[in-house]
Amino acid sequence: MHNPQLNKNGELQHLLTIEGLPKPILNHILDTASSFVSVSDREVKKVPLMRGKSVFNLFFENSTRTRTTFEIAAKRLSADVINLNISASSASKGESLLDTIDNLAAMHADMFVVRHGQSGAPHLIAAHLGRINHHHVHVVNAGDGRHAHPTQGLLDMYTIRHYKKDFSNLTVAIVGDILHSRVARSDIHALTTLGVPEIRAIAPLTLLPGGLEQMGVRVFTDINAGLKGVDVIIMLRLQSERMTGALLPSAQEYFKSYGLTPERLALAKPDAIVMHPGPMNRGVEIDSAVADGTQAVILPQVTFGIAVRMAVMGILAGN
Amino acid sequence: MHNPQLNKNGELQHLLTIEGLPKPILNHILDTASSFVSVSDREVKKVPLMRGKSVFNLFFENSTRTRTTFEIAAKRLSADVINLNISASSASKGESLLDTIDNLAAMHADMFVVRHGQSGAPHLIAAHLGRINHHHVHVVNAGDGRHAHPTQGLLDMYTIRHYKKDFSNLTVAIVGDILHSRVARSDIHALTTLGVPEIRAIAPLTLLPGGLEQMGVRVFTDINAGLKGVDVIIMLRLQSERMTGALLPSAQEYFKSYGLTPERLALAKPDAIVMHPGPMNRGVEIDSAVADGTQAVILPQVTFGIAVRMAVMGILAGN
Amino acid sequence: MHNPQLNKNGELQHLLTIEGLPKPILNHILDTASSFVSVSDREVKKVPLMRGKSVFNLFFENSTRTRTTFEIAAKRLSADVINLNISASSASKGESLLDTIDNLAAMHADMFVVRHGQSGAPHLIAAHLGRINHHHVHVVNAGDGRHAHPTQGLLDMYTIRHYKKDFSNLTVAIVGDILHSRVARSDIHALTTLGVPEIRAIAPLTLLPGGLEQMGVRVFTDINAGLKGVDVIIMLRLQSERMTGALLPSAQEYFKSYGLTPERLALAKPDAIVMHPGPMNRGVEIDSAVADGTQAVILPQVTFGIAVRMAVMGILAGN
Repeated sequence: MHNPQLNKNGELQHLLTIEGLPKPILNHILDTASSFVSVSDREVKKVPLMRGKSVFNLFFENSTRTRTTFEIAAKRLSADVINLNISASSASKGESLLDTIDNLAAMHADMFVVRHGQSGAPHLIAAHLGRINHHHVHVVNAGDGRHAHPTQGLLDMYTIRHYKKDFSNLTVAIVGDILHSRVARSDIHALTTLGVPEIRAIAPLTLLPGGLEQMGVRVFTDINAGLKGVDVIIMLRLQSERMTGALLPSAQEYFKSYGLTPERLALAKPDAIVMHPGPMNRGVEIDSAVADGTQAVILPQVTFGIAVRMAVMGILAGN
Repeated sequence: MHNPQLNKNGELQHLLTIEGLPKPILNHILDTASSFVSVSDREVKKVPLMRGKSVFNLFFENSTRTRTTFEIAAKRLSADVINLNISASSASKGESLLDTIDNLAAMHADMFVVRHGQSGAPHLIAAHLGRINHHHVHVVNAGDGRHAHPTQGLLDMYTIRHYKKDFSNLTVAIVGDILHSRVARSDIHALTTLGVPEIRAIAPLTLLPGGLEQMGVRVFTDINAGLKGVDVIIMLRLQSERMTGALLPSAQEYFKSYGLTPERLALAKPDAIVMHPGPMNRGVEIDSAVADGTQAVILPQVTFGIAVRMAVMGILAGN
Repeated sequence: MHNPQLNKNGELQHLLTIEGLPKPILNHILDTASSFVSVSDREVKKVPLMRGKSVFNLFFENSTRTRTTFEIAAKRLSADVINLNISASSASKGESLLDTIDNLAAMHADMFVVRHGQSGAPHLIAAHLGRINHHHVHVVNAGDGRHAHPTQGLLDMYTIRHYKKDFSNLTVAIVGDILHSRVARSDIHALTTLGVPEIRAIAPLTLLPGGLEQMGVRVFTDINAGLKGVDVIIMLRLQSERMTGALLPSAQEYFKSYGLTPERLALAKPDAIVMHPGPMNRGVEIDSAVADGTQAVILPQVTFGIAVRMAVMGILAGN
């Protein structure tokens, strides 16, 4: 089957999901990001790569944090950025998603950064743009439902590569609400493609999706066993709506069983790094002593995230 | 009486309404827009015409779609754009409209793009700016009450000229809720000025304003009779609040009597074009087969709309 | 004690409050603003001083007017501006203020413009940035609780200097709700530092804070006595929530006792100027005849406010 993310030359046309993305493309994004890390350090944090291009941030689901990272990345590439909070807009006038896309494409958009509550919405948009022959318009998935959050996955890979250099001898543990996490899905696909030999999922049974073993993931319900000897710990955010109710007894209970404390961190390798996609719930999934400790690389993740998004947008705009 | 839209040299000072706008000025806008259509096609979609100018989008009534088109147009002219959603702002602190304008003018605004629920608000603002000798500040009406939506009227004229070349031998039908439509009013004035010999209004009696005949418009309540032999069909959006209630029995009934179906479209000339200001209600005023058909020029309208708004802003900024 | 606003060279690192700011720094800001007043008059209202810098408007409390002035000032300095309405954002996801700041700093922000309902929030942010060694990031207080609004204080000083040239022989009256006003506090500190010999506070007892006399302020509850012979009148906005209730009988009563009418203005020096931070309540604290009269300099304040904010941001970015 044709990969809907690639153009006929096998180059990246859209970034919809990390699943199925060839390893050379993953590496090309990480290499390009590496050159952008220094741009954000300069006095003038701008390159003219997307001057005169129009990037539309289409957020059907509110996320100021993610929207901000894409807005900064696009502006540092010199693009014009238009923020559209669609829930407050045409959607309320009963216009369909694809009619909205048709209209914005007719305004000569160059790129859509799409956040949507429903899994698959960015794919739908990308497929539609192909059907109406708008091949110059690119789609970046900024999170869709429970499905994927590819730029978060890529910035996680960038962070791991930055600190660990080589993927081929790592053990990586993903801890927490894997069932509802698009970040976890994106990370597992990326880690697999990049050749990580051991991926572990650590969570209570109620927050574990089926099919992990088939993806080559080792599953642990005991966090102490799961963390033993790992190089990388990726903590997941626990959505507040899960904290009480059917899936979990309470936030306090969760912390007792799965919170990352200094004691538990000590089970991992001494040079293990701790990651988190943010925003953190201190005292729920992670102890402040760990979040602010020397092994945490949570803020560098944010910094690398800008560079990775610049890389994705720059590569797409060039293809 | 002095035309409040023109400066003392007879040049465009504000764009408030198409009513009373001299034909040479209409044509100048359309000609200038034509040069901007290609700008949006270029790699770098920017011209420096408004570099360092400040454009304020003053939206007293929410309209993401219209605001977006003006924002893109201004950014492609290299202006700085400030979006102000006024309902959520000083208005709630009890400040008067004119005090708000005084304040923004004191910030050295160059242009106000004004959307307001009340007819005449942009005129009031323009008159006030003249009174306080802010002659360097320009006002563009982005839709006021039921009164006017001049840039929509202009982009409709651009579209008609693009496809039909000459206005002097056309029959144009406007179909739908003419009573509440500022688009219809703007279109009728523009078509008249540009010399269209036959303008038709097609609507149920409850959605027809008085005075159309005096404006030279032929009125039809039977859509089949009204569409016969026309060159251009301008469909209007049916506001959902009209669909049930005193004015109309239901959306279904409306579609049966006035929806544009392929069968009805066949009554027009074979090369007739179908226009719609968007957002469309598919299955209410227009059949999807028509909206997505070969005679529809609804998306080109959107594209031309950016160029027309660039032309209006560029001309005003130069005067 | 070390002044948290100054870096180790004694230059301005943050603008948090006018209290304790050395007179040479105040004068340097006013002198710099003076050079920016002409920038806003030019055809191209831009200087490249902050090109490629990222300014984050962090508004934890909504204020379109203040946000707009900072946004314009930053854009005229060629900065990239990111507007964050934080109440609608991560705050609702339970992230702490300092975690939000850490994240934004990790995106290589250059400047935070902070508006917050709680007094001291900008100080907290500045102190935190120092602690985590983000010394390249600057904080500008855009109003915190009842505490300070330093750029408003500075633009008031700019306005007084513009019209009166010399501070050393002036009598300045501040009239109205001094108890709840961060503007009044900032003005009193600035006037004192700049050597104004007589500062008067005029208000009903219920709207007077304690400690004014210790700050060297003469207190009047009789407006007629207080206005006698003054050079400058700074009116304060009466918050609508004070107008009825425990502190004041009604807006009408307030106007009768403390509203600035032409008759009362006549008690001041003939060339006295009238200032107001806006938005005005006409007919509550000020008569329209005065607000629109020849002695009012309320709109020039707004114009100077842009230049003063450009000066503050430009100076900070250069240090």
